[in-house]
Amino acid sequence: MFRFTVTATDGRARTGVLETPSGPVLTPVFMPVGTQGTVKGIDVHALAEIKSQILLANTYHLLLRPGPELVAKLGGLHGFAGWKGPWLTDSGGFQVMSLGHLRKITEEGVEFRNHLNGDLVFLSPERSIEVQEQLGADIIMAFDECPPYPASREYLERSLERTLRWLERSLKAKTRKDQALFGITQGGVELDLREKSTRETVKFDLPGYAIGGLAVGEPKEKMLPAVELSTRLLPEDRPRYLMGVGHPEDLVAAVALGVDMFDCVYPTRTGRFGYALTDEGRLNFNSARFKEDPRPIDETCDCLACRVHSRAYLTHLVRAGEMLGAVLLSLHNLRYLHRLTERMRRAIQAGRFAEFALAFAEKRFRGKTPAWFRYALKAGGHL
Amino acid sequence: MFRFTVTATDGRARTGVLETPSGPVLTPVFMPVGTQGTVKGIDVHALAEIKSQILLANTYHLLLRPGPELVAKLGGLHGFAGWKGPWLTDSGGFQVMSLGHLRKITEEGVEFRNHLNGDLVFLSPERSIEVQEQLGADIIMAFDECPPYPASREYLERSLERTLRWLERSLKAKTRKDQALFGITQGGVELDLREKSTRETVKFDLPGYAIGGLAVGEPKEKMLPAVELSTRLLPEDRPRYLMGVGHPEDLVAAVALGVDMFDCVYPTRTGRFGYALTDEGRLNFNSARFKEDPRPIDETCDCLACRVHSRAYLTHLVRAGEMLGAVLLSLHNLRYLHRLTERMRRAIQAGRFAEFALAFAEKRFRGKTPAWFRYALKAGGHL
Repeated sequence: MFRFTVTATDGRARTGVLETPSGPVLTPVFMPVGTQGTVKGIDVHALAEIKSQILLANTYHLLLRPGPELVAKLGGLHGFAGWKGPWLTDSGGFQVMSLGHLRKITEEGVEFRNHLNGDLVFLSPERSIEVQEQLGADIIMAFDECPPYPASREYLERSLERTLRWLERSLKAKTRKDQALFGITQGGVELDLREKSTRETVKFDLPGYAIGGLAVGEPKEKMLPAVELSTRLLPEDRPRYLMGVGHPEDLVAAVALGVDMFDCVYPTRTGRFGYALTDEGRLNFNSARFKEDPRPIDETCDCLACRVHSRAYLTHLVRAGEMLGAVLLSLHNLRYLHRLTERMRRAIQAGRFAEFALAFAEKRFRGKTPAWFRYALKAGGHL
Repeated sequence: MFRFTVTATDGRARTGVLETPSGPVLTPVFMPVGTQGTVKGIDVHALAEIKSQILLANTYHLLLRPGPELVAKLGGLHGFAGWKGPWLTDSGGFQVMSLGHLRKITEEGVEFRNHLNGDLVFLSPERSIEVQEQLGADIIMAFDECPPYPASREYLERSLERTLRWLERSLKAKTRKDQALFGITQGGVELDLREKSTRETVKFDLPGYAIGGLAVGEPKEKMLPAVELSTRLLPEDRPRYLMGVGHPEDLVAAVALGVDMFDCVYPTRTGRFGYALTDEGRLNFNSARFKEDPRPIDETCDCLACRVHSRAYLTHLVRAGEMLGAVLLSLHNLRYLHRLTERMRRAIQAGRFAEFALAFAEKRFRGKTPAWFRYALKAGGHL
């Protein structure tokens, strides 16, 4: 029901197939974020058309509204939201930290104020798993404590220890057999703590592992070595999920190091703000720059926005505040990241990942490839 | 290039085919409004899927932004907005009255403040036609003066006379041969004035006629007799377009009287506000009423929202303020009106319009069919 098979490797980069009860997922994969059970503005028909494979939903948001009992009653996320392919739910740990008001963290769990109505809500490993079982995703996440950046070594250490104890409690709380539970490593960018967290987490012999607590504000020069250490210590035969990462250049660098899965609100959020992702960087449709440009966002893209519309029209939509601008740019940006992973999969399978990554860097950084990107390629065995 | 053929009649109701340079339109037809060159939130692929046939765009809005020169440069509305099927543009007359600030109306035309930047803008029959030729719709409208309701007889009379003079100037200003210009009748709900306006307008022997100045706040008891008089006086062999009407019951009543074309922002606007159209009236997804309802909006509807989603999910989207709620409800509402016209076309072709309209009234009014609806059926020869 749940199995991961590496299908090709190139240096430390790899392609794989992740089998889930709702169908297979080809990795590397980018997972669109459907925070409240909907990828903002994009219907499930359009998601299928741009070849989304697996969606992510947030336990925190769905716990507060509409409530997990209702989602369960309507067939879990698959029935409730109408996306019949694979789902992944996070544990709520990250949102409790970033959104919860008046939160109080104890060994037992986290008490916080519902940001919608002020009610006191309690989330613990047991409660998080209970809610995730009701939501019914194919992949569920252990309840973790995600420290901010920067955080003291003492805090990072206490927090990673607690995350390990919470992982154990998450596993004990789990009752459904048709969901795979991933553990989450912590330790910030302190490499010895990251190593400790990873080695201890791996002992639980889980179907997959997430690298947590990164992409929270630390510089890339610190993030990439933490990713490098993580993928080195994680087992070859399990999927590796780098949480919250969605910038194109970060995807390429992390895939170089052997990461398989990604999620981020970035493509939809930046789309709503009027930006389109391309290999050359973001195009800003709030400006007048593309006002009369008859070309599509990207000649090579097969999304609806690129097949049908000009940059001039998109500029008009964004500047006129038309909802369709947000919809089309979100759609393009998701398709861009899906295509980026497709291109990486093909490159890995052809043994040409280095070539792909260097060509990508040439376009993206215009001859000024940053040291952290070259570091990732080198550490990944591509240079 | 432009031809209208009545294909069936049932009482005064009729079906027809309106041939345009961009393809045929089956009537009765509802035209989605793409005010700024986009039907709010709905992409052209989805519009084709719900079987939209012809879109309307607003000359006033596109004149101000992005400007008709740019639209022309990008291939007119067809190229600019990516909808390759038929388009209709209004003349800007209605918007100048309802949106323009500090407007000054003279025989020459209307001077008003651009609501975006405060610039003085001048719109006249000649300028409106020039702009509509640049926008390049298949059907363009004469520049008219649309009085508010209520208005004095004196004002209505002066205004309908001016509208006739402006129609003459509109026709003189027209240079393109591949666009059909429709005239617009006025006269409010004063039947003698409406008759005068219609008789004089018809003398111009135009490819189509719009019934203007209705649905501006007058009671239905006054609107329907004005429609009845209009369709009685308009030639059988030309399409009749009732401007700004989009409530389902109004469509049925007006089709009973021989109207062929409709447009209104109602289905998309009420969708953005969280309402779904059905034969039984509007469902309000802002309320908790359908919170746990696993049924689709409408079992008989084939739109994406009804095929895939439950009322419970739509309630969640609307209450959570998710953009997809507005998108899916707008899509459903447009499809609902398209299906309503499809059902009426089939009923007319089968000689069963009366049966259809009475069954519709039974559901819509639950045994309390208003007098104005029965009046329309009777005057249309269906009772």
